[in-house]
Amino acid sequence: MSSDHLSNTFAALADPTRRAILARLASGEATVTQLAEPFKMSLPGISKHLKVLQGAGLIVQGREAQWRPCRLNAAPLKEIADWTERYRRNWEQRFDRLDDYLRVLQKKEKKRGRKKK
Amino acid sequence: MSSDHLSNTFAALADPTRRAILARLASGEATVTQLAEPFKMSLPGISKHLKVLQGAGLIVQGREAQWRPCRLNAAPLKEIADWTERYRRNWEQRFDRLDDYLRVLQKKEKKRGRKKK
Repeated sequence: MSSDHLSNTFAALADPTRRAILARLASGEATVTQLAEPFKMSLPGISKHLKVLQGAGLIVQGREAQWRPCRLNAAPLKEIADWTERYRRNWEQRFDRLDDYLRVLQKKEKKRGRKKK
Repeated sequence: MSSDHLSNTFAALADPTRRAILARLASGEATVTQLAEPFKMSLPGISKHLKVLQGAGLIVQGREAQWRPCRLNAAPLKEIADWTERYRRNWEQRFDRLDDYLRVLQKKEKKRGRKKK
C-alpha cells in the first residue's frame, strides 16, 4: 500500500458525515437516496461525500443505472487498524507507568500497616 | 470524545510527513531541528506540520525556551484503533466467505476422489 493511499483513507475518514455513511453501510448496502435521508442533505451533497469514499476505496457502487446500491469495502479500514498497531506499545506504556506507580503506593501502604502492628 | 476531535485526528494523519514525524517520536522525544533533518524541510515547514499534530493532541511540546523537545501522545491513536474495531466484523466476513468457498471446493474434490475409487 503506498503512502498516498493511506493519506487518502485518512482524509476520507476526517469527516463525521462520511464516517456516518460507513457506519450505515456496515449493516448492509443502501442506495444514495437511502443514505441521504438521515442527513437531510441534498443528493449532490451526499454524492460528493460518496465520491471521496469511493476514491479511497472505502465504498463500491453498483453499476445498474437506476438502482445503484453502495456497499462498504472494509479493507482500507483494516489497513488503518494495522497502521495504528505499531503505536500500541506507546499507548500501553502509559498504562504500565500508572501500574508501576500504583504498585509503589501499595508497597508503601503495606509497610505502614506493618509498622502500626 | 467528540466527533470533531476524531475528524481532527484523521485529518492530521492524512499526510506522510506527519506520519513520519510520529514514527520518529514513537522511539523517543526529539527537538524540532532533529525532526526537520530527515525531511530536508525548512523549520517553518516542519513547524506547520507540528502545529497540526499538536492541534490533534498527537504530540506535546516542552516549554523550555531553547530546547523544546516534542513527545508523542499516543492516546488519540488508540481512539482511532478503537474506532476501526467496529468494522472488524466487516473485513473478517470477507475472509469467512473465502473460507466457505474453499470448503465447498474441498468437498467437491473429496466426492470426485470417492467416485474414482
